[in-house]
Amino acid sequence: MTVSAAALQAFRAALGPQGVSDDPDVLAPLLTDWRGVMTGRTPLLLRPSCTAEVAALVQIARAHHVPLVPQGGNTGLVQGGTPAEDGSEVLVSLQRMARIRALDADGFSMTAEAGVVLADVQTAAVAAGRMFPLSLGSEGSARIGGLVATNAGGVHVLRHGTMRALVLGLEAVLPDGQIFNDLAPLRKDNSGYDLKQLLIGSEGTLGIITAATLKLVPAPRARAVAWIGLESPANALRLLAHVRAASADQVSSFELMPRVGLDLVLQHIPGSRDPLPTPHPWAVLLETTCEQDVLTDALSHPSVADAVIAASQTQADALWRLRETLPEAERIDGRAAKHDIALPVGAVPAFLDAAAVAVEAILPGARVLAFGHLGDGNIHYNVRRPAAMGPARFVEHIPSLSAQVHDVVTRFGGSISAEHGIGRLKRAELARLADPAKLSAMRAIKAALDPLGLFNPGRIL
Amino acid sequence: MTVSAAALQAFRAALGPQGVSDDPDVLAPLLTDWRGVMTGRTPLLLRPSCTAEVAALVQIARAHHVPLVPQGGNTGLVQGGTPAEDGSEVLVSLQRMARIRALDADGFSMTAEAGVVLADVQTAAVAAGRMFPLSLGSEGSARIGGLVATNAGGVHVLRHGTMRALVLGLEAVLPDGQIFNDLAPLRKDNSGYDLKQLLIGSEGTLGIITAATLKLVPAPRARAVAWIGLESPANALRLLAHVRAASADQVSSFELMPRVGLDLVLQHIPGSRDPLPTPHPWAVLLETTCEQDVLTDALSHPSVADAVIAASQTQADALWRLRETLPEAERIDGRAAKHDIALPVGAVPAFLDAAAVAVEAILPGARVLAFGHLGDGNIHYNVRRPAAMGPARFVEHIPSLSAQVHDVVTRFGGSISAEHGIGRLKRAELARLADPAKLSAMRAIKAALDPLGLFNPGRIL
Repeated sequence: MTVSAAALQAFRAALGPQGVSDDPDVLAPLLTDWRGVMTGRTPLLLRPSCTAEVAALVQIARAHHVPLVPQGGNTGLVQGGTPAEDGSEVLVSLQRMARIRALDADGFSMTAEAGVVLADVQTAAVAAGRMFPLSLGSEGSARIGGLVATNAGGVHVLRHGTMRALVLGLEAVLPDGQIFNDLAPLRKDNSGYDLKQLLIGSEGTLGIITAATLKLVPAPRARAVAWIGLESPANALRLLAHVRAASADQVSSFELMPRVGLDLVLQHIPGSRDPLPTPHPWAVLLETTCEQDVLTDALSHPSVADAVIAASQTQADALWRLRETLPEAERIDGRAAKHDIALPVGAVPAFLDAAAVAVEAILPGARVLAFGHLGDGNIHYNVRRPAAMGPARFVEHIPSLSAQVHDVVTRFGGSISAEHGIGRLKRAELARLADPAKLSAMRAIKAALDPLGLFNPGRIL
Repeated sequence: MTVSAAALQAFRAALGPQGVSDDPDVLAPLLTDWRGVMTGRTPLLLRPSCTAEVAALVQIARAHHVPLVPQGGNTGLVQGGTPAEDGSEVLVSLQRMARIRALDADGFSMTAEAGVVLADVQTAAVAAGRMFPLSLGSEGSARIGGLVATNAGGVHVLRHGTMRALVLGLEAVLPDGQIFNDLAPLRKDNSGYDLKQLLIGSEGTLGIITAATLKLVPAPRARAVAWIGLESPANALRLLAHVRAASADQVSSFELMPRVGLDLVLQHIPGSRDPLPTPHPWAVLLETTCEQDVLTDALSHPSVADAVIAASQTQADALWRLRETLPEAERIDGRAAKHDIALPVGAVPAFLDAAAVAVEAILPGARVLAFGHLGDGNIHYNVRRPAAMGPARFVEHIPSLSAQVHDVVTRFGGSISAEHGIGRLKRAELARLADPAKLSAMRAIKAALDPLGLFNPGRIL
């Protein structure tokens, strides 16, 4: 399948010279995925500047049967926004649609186009005395359209929810070429099916998101950050329940890290140091928006082995760096098989035990590094090669290892994709493990809304 | 269309004598809607006791082409759960499925079957030291299945969201007869389309909800309730923004009431008295979960004309009664044309001005009573007859009056159904006013998931 010359000509005519590109230097950074795992091709890059242009290019795609791959900041981790290797798909970058259309501080809402970078949304909110609570590692590059399309999560989900909970309104172009206009910042709306919620997390397969109205929250009055040493994940869960209750639900982050993770950071990241005088099997990084004395009281809980509360912004930042540099420390240490999984929060300790047994059975000596957003049940379950096994041999084992891990996740009622999505990377695993009723309903919905199969084909389904 | 004897026989055989009824005394309370506006008929009441029985009855309905109307506590306000007058539909009551399957206090979740009454969920949560924050007038009768199917709202949406934000997992029988099993309490899950969110608010037209896993929150540490006199809705909005910021977003209710509403309560409800010494054009009932001194400080804001903070639980209850008895006082005063609408919060003052002009133009002398959940932009916009017009003449005017109100709502980007749903009552208005792209997508989804059109037909679409 190649895109016809007539289609390319129609795209060029509709979008004008600013709206298209086939310059290899412009294209290159958009064709390789964030992890550097795959590089695709496209006959033409489309760069619409407004919603009407997106609708126009969808009409052309329909007329010429051209598959479209929408892309925001190209920070996805599951190859959802990278065009196929064979050049059969046209890449649609939303980066030129980067306007904040409205900000209403008293109404706690902001309307941003798909191409606005998350950090710019955060900055605009702060300038208005508000906060946009989505926060994640790639916030300097990730853009609103992609963040909505993948229902992004991050480090404040415990308090504020995923993107799904932060979208009050949405604008998108549907596969039939119509513009779905639902941007009004309504806090309640029961007028029919919530198409907005269906589009959130659909990874560009049901619509191209062009703008979103986002929920803002009051800027926090206080911030208290603690580093806590504990004996076990079970103790961490008990502590989480206790602090949530004691702080009137003002816990914004609750990040779990095993000793082996902290050791990797201390070994590989210059300037890092253990916040506690003696080692503990597990650590929790806790951030709350309550006053420090409330947190001090809460940390007298018996589940806490030792703890330190940051006395300054600088100390708080240093504690956060221990958590944020863990992926980098891990990368320096060598390749791992990574799993972005979610479990019922209360099932995390039992899952960790069961998964360790399964990993040891299939790959004796493999080293598990499980860390992440315990408050959301979202564990980054990474497995490094056994010391005695070479990197190339290890790579061969990853598919069967991952299948094992996903099997255990499914057994505990968990999700094989907590926050990264399915894309192309996890499509086969989704088909293997998803609830059959859900799968057939998803396929029916896809066929109903995109009967030509032109919107990000081969992603998710 | 009548339901065949063969179909009725198959239902009886599948569900047993406990699972069906045609006793008029059993049927009567289920056949008239909550407002007493319509009474339907059904050849047989189905009362499944478990999810497998619901799946079995759906298979029989498919084989015999029998339309099904699911019903919970029969508290709906839009005739969504009442079978048609012609007896062509079979009523499915979920009231026998009334088990709380699981409660995990440390995991902040509870799994309840569709027939559990909301008040029982609240009580079970409190017994475990937690809170289930959905709260509304009919909570002693409304059941979880219906509350999920209609995405119920109520008085704590500002802080905790609608039902949509409180459902972590869902179980439902789909129109193809498969059981959709997604009950695990996952806080993050990006494994494909969020079918759960599509079913929430779909009013039984896409699936019969059999159980839900609900999000619990910590029991509040404190409660402070105030009654505030103000000059205008614009001042109320300014106050809301101020208190949200000052209390670290601990505002749980923010209810607006005009003087005419308070006067109705004082006139018709025995024992009620004005909490403030002098009259004010508008009042706000404010509930927060912060300490009382934080609230006292916040109420020194210039938007406040006068205010009183409840000094005891008894006083707080008395203030809430002024708000909760307003619908009853209004009923005693005479019939009103009611509109359950939502607007962008910041647009409420301008909407009230514009709607008043529109109402006066079409029905001079009509008296507007607009009150409700200002924090959610959810206004109960009720219009009473002009003093000089008789009740019967007024009823004739209601359809054109409502169309006018809905037109103004739509002009301001609002919703013609904030929390009650569409059902049969608002179906024509939805078809007239909804975004065309949304309507056609909704129709495509309905046809894809329920091609035989057997699930609550004629509701919403």
